[in-house]
Amino acid sequence: MVQQHPLDQLTVNEVNIARAIVKSARHPHPIVVRNIVLEEPAKKQLLPYLDAENKGASLKELGKLKPPRLARCIYDVVIPGRETETFFYDSVVDLDQRVEIDKNIVKGFHAPLSAEEIEVFPSLVTSSSMFQDAVKDLNLPPNTTVVIDPWMYGGCSENEPRLMQGLIYARDPGSNNPDSNHYAFPLPIIPVVDMKTRQVVRIDKLATGGAEDGLKEGTGPKCALEHCKPSEYIPELVEGGLRNDLKPLNVIQPKGPSFVVIGSQIKWQKWSFRVGFNPREGATIHDVRFEGRSIFYRLSFSEMSVPYGDPRAPFHRKQAFDFGDGGAGRAANNLQLGCDCLGLIKYFDAVMTDTNGKGAVYPNVICLHEQDNGIGWKHTNYRTGRAVVTRNRQLVVQFIITLANYEYIFAYIFDQAGGLTLETRASGIVSTVPIDPGKTSPYGDVVSPGVLAQNHQHLFCVRIDPAIDGQNNTVIQEESHPIPWTPEENPYGHGYRTHQTPFEKSGFADAAPQFNRIFKIVNRNKTNPISGRPVAYKFTPSSSQLQLAHPGSLMARRSTYASHHVWVTKYRDGELYASGRWTNQSAREVGGVADMAARNDDVDNEDVVVWHSFGLTHNPRTEDFPVMPVEIHQVSFKPSDFFTRNPAIDVPSQKNLSSALYEDTTAPVNKLSPSSTFDVGCCKYPNSQTSNDLVVMLAAGANGTKPVSTGAGL
Amino acid sequence: MVQQHPLDQLTVNEVNIARAIVKSARHPHPIVVRNIVLEEPAKKQLLPYLDAENKGASLKELGKLKPPRLARCIYDVVIPGRETETFFYDSVVDLDQRVEIDKNIVKGFHAPLSAEEIEVFPSLVTSSSMFQDAVKDLNLPPNTTVVIDPWMYGGCSENEPRLMQGLIYARDPGSNNPDSNHYAFPLPIIPVVDMKTRQVVRIDKLATGGAEDGLKEGTGPKCALEHCKPSEYIPELVEGGLRNDLKPLNVIQPKGPSFVVIGSQIKWQKWSFRVGFNPREGATIHDVRFEGRSIFYRLSFSEMSVPYGDPRAPFHRKQAFDFGDGGAGRAANNLQLGCDCLGLIKYFDAVMTDTNGKGAVYPNVICLHEQDNGIGWKHTNYRTGRAVVTRNRQLVVQFIITLANYEYIFAYIFDQAGGLTLETRASGIVSTVPIDPGKTSPYGDVVSPGVLAQNHQHLFCVRIDPAIDGQNNTVIQEESHPIPWTPEENPYGHGYRTHQTPFEKSGFADAAPQFNRIFKIVNRNKTNPISGRPVAYKFTPSSSQLQLAHPGSLMARRSTYASHHVWVTKYRDGELYASGRWTNQSAREVGGVADMAARNDDVDNEDVVVWHSFGLTHNPRTEDFPVMPVEIHQVSFKPSDFFTRNPAIDVPSQKNLSSALYEDTTAPVNKLSPSSTFDVGCCKYPNSQTSNDLVVMLAAGANGTKPVSTGAGL
Repeated sequence: MVQQHPLDQLTVNEVNIARAIVKSARHPHPIVVRNIVLEEPAKKQLLPYLDAENKGASLKELGKLKPPRLARCIYDVVIPGRETETFFYDSVVDLDQRVEIDKNIVKGFHAPLSAEEIEVFPSLVTSSSMFQDAVKDLNLPPNTTVVIDPWMYGGCSENEPRLMQGLIYARDPGSNNPDSNHYAFPLPIIPVVDMKTRQVVRIDKLATGGAEDGLKEGTGPKCALEHCKPSEYIPELVEGGLRNDLKPLNVIQPKGPSFVVIGSQIKWQKWSFRVGFNPREGATIHDVRFEGRSIFYRLSFSEMSVPYGDPRAPFHRKQAFDFGDGGAGRAANNLQLGCDCLGLIKYFDAVMTDTNGKGAVYPNVICLHEQDNGIGWKHTNYRTGRAVVTRNRQLVVQFIITLANYEYIFAYIFDQAGGLTLETRASGIVSTVPIDPGKTSPYGDVVSPGVLAQNHQHLFCVRIDPAIDGQNNTVIQEESHPIPWTPEENPYGHGYRTHQTPFEKSGFADAAPQFNRIFKIVNRNKTNPISGRPVAYKFTPSSSQLQLAHPGSLMARRSTYASHHVWVTKYRDGELYASGRWTNQSAREVGGVADMAARNDDVDNEDVVVWHSFGLTHNPRTEDFPVMPVEIHQVSFKPSDFFTRNPAIDVPSQKNLSSALYEDTTAPVNKLSPSSTFDVGCCKYPNSQTSNDLVVMLAAGANGTKPVSTGAGL
Repeated sequence: MVQQHPLDQLTVNEVNIARAIVKSARHPHPIVVRNIVLEEPAKKQLLPYLDAENKGASLKELGKLKPPRLARCIYDVVIPGRETETFFYDSVVDLDQRVEIDKNIVKGFHAPLSAEEIEVFPSLVTSSSMFQDAVKDLNLPPNTTVVIDPWMYGGCSENEPRLMQGLIYARDPGSNNPDSNHYAFPLPIIPVVDMKTRQVVRIDKLATGGAEDGLKEGTGPKCALEHCKPSEYIPELVEGGLRNDLKPLNVIQPKGPSFVVIGSQIKWQKWSFRVGFNPREGATIHDVRFEGRSIFYRLSFSEMSVPYGDPRAPFHRKQAFDFGDGGAGRAANNLQLGCDCLGLIKYFDAVMTDTNGKGAVYPNVICLHEQDNGIGWKHTNYRTGRAVVTRNRQLVVQFIITLANYEYIFAYIFDQAGGLTLETRASGIVSTVPIDPGKTSPYGDVVSPGVLAQNHQHLFCVRIDPAIDGQNNTVIQEESHPIPWTPEENPYGHGYRTHQTPFEKSGFADAAPQFNRIFKIVNRNKTNPISGRPVAYKFTPSSSQLQLAHPGSLMARRSTYASHHVWVTKYRDGELYASGRWTNQSAREVGGVADMAARNDDVDNEDVVVWHSFGLTHNPRTEDFPVMPVEIHQVSFKPSDFFTRNPAIDVPSQKNLSSALYEDTTAPVNKLSPSSTFDVGCCKYPNSQTSNDLVVMLAAGANGTKPVSTGAGL
C-alpha cells in the first residue's frame, strides 16, 4: 500500500466526505452535485514537499511537509420555493479538518454540463409533444428510432436561461441495430431544452440547401431520410466485409517493462513524473524530472473548442468546448487491453462523481506503456564500417475521450533524450446535417447521400507550467535571420544568425515558421558549463491556422485563447483553463489566457506559465466517413543546452534478437463475408462501473498456424 | 525466379555489359567509370506495360510491351597526351541491342564525386608536404592520428579546376581508438586538392575566434587540441557507462508478414508498388496503386543540400548537395537485422559500380517491414458502450545514408487508409570546427570544449509524380478564409469557406499555414460519386524556413529549388533532379525546378510533377553531441474524395491477445561500468560486399529470466 500523495486523485471515500461536508454546510437546502475533484495544493505549499520527496526524504519528514488535503465541489443548491432560480456553488473543503474553507456563489456564468443532464436530456426531448409533432412532419418510415445527441447550447447573450440543444438523427430503418451509424441519417430539426424547467422550448429548423440556396432553408425531401443510405462501421455491418489478410503484430516485453509505477508516480529511463486525472482535463502530468533535475511542474491539455464554419443559423451555436463545457475527463473511455493499447500495459483508474453525485471508480481511463519509434540515434564510421545504432524507446501516457460523435486520443510521449511530446489524434465520426438530394454545399462535403459533413475547426490549447532547473524561468522568442550582406559582417552573403527577444511582460506571440521562430524556456540563473548558454527547453509552436470566426463575432469572443499561438502568463494557483473557468453557454471568454496576459505581469525570470494554442481546420472528405482515420498532431518540448551532451548517448545498442528475415510468399487476398463471427472483436465496454475484467491472455499460437521461420520465442 | 521488370535495377552482369559497350565505343581511349545505372524507360513506353501488368496480362503479352532495356553511364575518358583535360561523358546504351544510343560530352559542369575520388582523397592529403608542414604548425601531441573527411569543394565560379576540400580532425590522442569521435578534436586547416593533378594546391586557415573577433581569425591556442576533450559514442567509451535498465521490446509476427514481395514489387493492404534504387536518390517508389487504382507514378527524395550559415571564409563553400554531389544511394548503409529495423524484415540489395567501375552488389540497403502506430480509428457508441477500434498498421520502406559525419534516415510509410508519408530523420554527428578556448560564437554552439558546432540548414526536396486515377492531373491550391461578415453571406460572423486556385501554368507557391493552405492533386476527369468532387490526393506542405542565404549569393544561386515550398512542372522524361543534374562544384543551379517551372508550360489537366522543398534550420545544441537524437520530419499525402468512404473501415478490430497487464515492481537502477562487454552490440558492418550473414535468431528467453506474468506466447 503506497502512501497517499498530495497530487493523488481523491478516493471514493474522500469524494463522499467532501459531499457530506457541503451538504451539511448547505443544510437544510438539498444539493445536486456536479463535480467533486481534488483541489491541487498551492504551489508554495507543494514545492517543498516535492523537493524533499525528490531528495529521498523519509515518510515522517514528508508528513510534516504535507499540504492540507482539499477538495473542490461544484454543485447546485435547491432552495424550496425558488426552484426556478439557479444557485450554483463552488466550494472548497478541507478533508483533514472536515470543514468548508471557501464558498463562492457563481453568478453570471453557467455551470458545466453534468453527467446527469447529459444522461436525462434525450428523454426530455422524446417526451415532448412539440418534438413529437416536429418528427411527424419528417415523414419517417414507420418504427424509425430517433437518436438524440445531447449538445451544449453554444454561445448566447448574458442572462439567458440554462439551455441545451439536441442534434437529431435516425437509426437506419433497414437494420435498426443499436450500434448502427445514425450520422448517416441526419434529421433537419434541433430541439432546444430549458434545463431548469426541463421542457423543450422550441424546435430550430435546419437549412438543408446547397450552394444555390445561400443561407435559406432548402426545399428538402418530402421524407427526410428519402435519399440517405447506411454507412456502417461495426464489423458485422461493414459493406463488403472485412480484410482477412492482416496478420498479427505483437509487442512482447519478455523481461517486463522498463518503467516502474509507485502509486501515481512513474519512473522510466531517468524520467520521473506523476500522473493525475480530473473530470475536466483528463490526465495531467506533474513534477517532471530527468535525473532528478526539475523540468516541468505541470502539463495538461487545457481546452479544446470545435467551432463550425457553416454560416447558416443555427450553426452559429455549434461550438463545443469539450473541456470546459462538460469535461474531457468525464468523457474518458474505459480502455481495453490489446485494443486501445498494445504491449505491456499499466492502467490507471479515475475517481469521479457519478450521475448521483457520489464517488465512483472509472476503471482504466489512462494507459501507460512503452513503444518503439524506430531509430533513436545512429552513426557509422565509414572508415571502419562500425555502426552504433540505438532504438528510440518511448513511454506513452494516453487517454481517449468520446464526445457523442467525436473521439480524441491524447498522449504524453517521453523519449530517452529528454524530449516530451504532446500528441492529439482526432477520430470518431464527423458531425453531419441533412442536405437536399443532389446538392452540394460550400460549407462542407457530402460524405454519404443526403449527408453534409460541415467544415469546422478543432482549436486546442496545452498548458505548460515549466520549472527548468527551478521555478524562475524566462520565455525567449528566437528566430534565424540572414546577416546583412555587407563586407564587414557577411561578405559572401550566406551567413545567418539567431535573434532573441525575451518576454518581459505577460503577453502573446504567434508562430512564424518562415523565420524558424522557436520559443526557449530558459533559466537565466543556470548556465550550461560546456556552451555557456542558459539551460533551457525549447519548442516550435505548431503554425496551424487559428480561429476563422471574425474577432467580434460571438464565436470568436468566446475563445480568445485561439487567437494566438503562444501565451506567456505569470503563475497563479488555480489558473488552469485557457478559455476561462466557465465556458458553457458563455457570452465571451472570461478569465482565460487573454485576461491573464492582459495583467501585464513581469515574467522575466519569474514563475511563468506557457500556453500553446493550435488548430486543425477540418474540411471533411469522403474518407472521413463513417469513421475518420486518425488525424495526428504533435508538439515537442526538447532540451536546449540543458544537458552537457546527448542524454541518450548511454542507451545500449544491443541487437534485438527477436527480429527475423522475411521469406517470399504470395498470399491470396480474400474478403470475409459480413456474416462471419467476430469472437475476439474490439470491444464491448461494460456500462456499469465494475472493476475491469482480468482479460485472459491466450497464447497467440493457439490462434492458428505456427510461425514461419521467425525463430523468435519468449 | 521472377521475371525481370523494366524498373528493376541493373544486374551486375548488365552493369558490366554497359561498361563494355562504352569502353568499346571509346576505344582506344581508356575510360574511368563513375556510375552506371538503369535509365528508367520513357513514360510513354512504360505506361502501357504497367497498365497491362496491373490488369493481369500474361508474361507473353507483357513481353511484347517491354520497353528497351537501357543503361546510363557516366564516365571520364582519358585521352593520352591530354590527361590534364577532363572529358566527362554521359552515355546511354541499349542493353538488348548492345549499342550506345546516345552520347553527350558534358561541358561546363563538374561530374559528381566518384567512389574512387572519395576513397583516395585522404591519402592525397596526407602524402602532401604542404599539408604535413601545416600539421606541424598545429603542435599536436606526438603520434596523433590526423583524420580527414573528404568533402565536395562547394560553389565556385565557372571554369575552375576540379577540386575537393578536406575537413580535418584528430583522433583523441588519449585512446587512439579508430572509432573515437574525432569531431571532438577539430583542426583549423582545410586542404584543397586539385582532383585532376591529385595535388594539394593550398591550405585554407579557419577562423577560430569568438563573437568578439568578428570575421577575423582568432588567436588560437598554441596547441590546436589544447582544450579539447573526448566525447565518445561507441559503447565501451561512453563516459559514465551505459544504462542497464532498458528491457527488451520485441516485435513478433507469429503468422508472418502481411506484405508479399515478388521481385521488386510489394503488395500490402490493398497497396501495390515497386521499389527501385539508384546511387543518387537511394530508394525510389514506382507505380503506386490502391485497389488497382493508380495514385503515383514515381516518388523520390530528389535533393538535399546542407548550407552552413557561418559567414567567415572558407565556410561560404561549406555547402553539400548530398544527392547530386556524390549520391545518397552510394552512401547507403548496409542495414542490420534487429538494429536498424525491428520485427519481420525484408531486405533489398542494390547494384552499383564499385571503385573500379565494375558492377557489385551492395546488400541490405533497403529494409521493408511493418509497424504499429497506435490507434487507426475508433468510435464508441456511448449509449451501448460498444467501441470499435482498429490499430494503425503501417508499412515502411527505409534506407539510411552516412555522409562522413551525418546520417539521414529516409522512409516511405504507407498506411491502411490510403495515406503515404515521406519521413526524414537526421542523426549522426554535427559538423564541427575549432573555437578558441573560453569563447562563444554567434555562428554556432560550443558543444564540447574548443569545439563549435556551426549553424546550418538541411534543405530537402521530394519529387512526386502523381497519377491520380490517370496521368492527367491538376494541382490546386486550396485555402480556408472567413466569409465576409455581411447579413447576406454570414450574419453571425463565424462562417468560413475554402478558396481554390488551380495551377494553370508551371510555377511555384509557398506554404501558408495561417490560411490552412493545402495542395490538392486532382483528376478533373473523374468525379467522386458521393460528393461530386473530383478525385484527389492532398498534402499540407511543411511550412519550414527555406534557404537563408541571400538570393544573389553564390550559395543561394546554387540551390534555387530551396527558395519556394512547392513547384509544379510539366512532366518530361529524365527531369528528376530538383537542383539540376550537375550540382558538384556548381556556380549556379542549372536545369533544376526553377528552370523547369520557368518554361511556363500548361499544367492544368496535364501530366504534372509536384516538388516539395522543406527545410530544417539546425542551430545545434549541446544535446546534439556527440551524436544527435533523431530530428524527425514528415509530409503526408492523403486521399481527398478519392474513395467513397474511409478505405480502412474494413480493417478488422480484433483484440491483440499478446498484450499484457503490468505488475507493479520497483527495480534498482544501476549503471554498467564502461569495461563491460557487449557481445551483441550494434553493429559491426563488414567492409566487403559479401552477402549478408544470416543472423541466427536466438529465443529471447535464452537471454535471461522468464517473463513476469505476460502470458503471451507464439
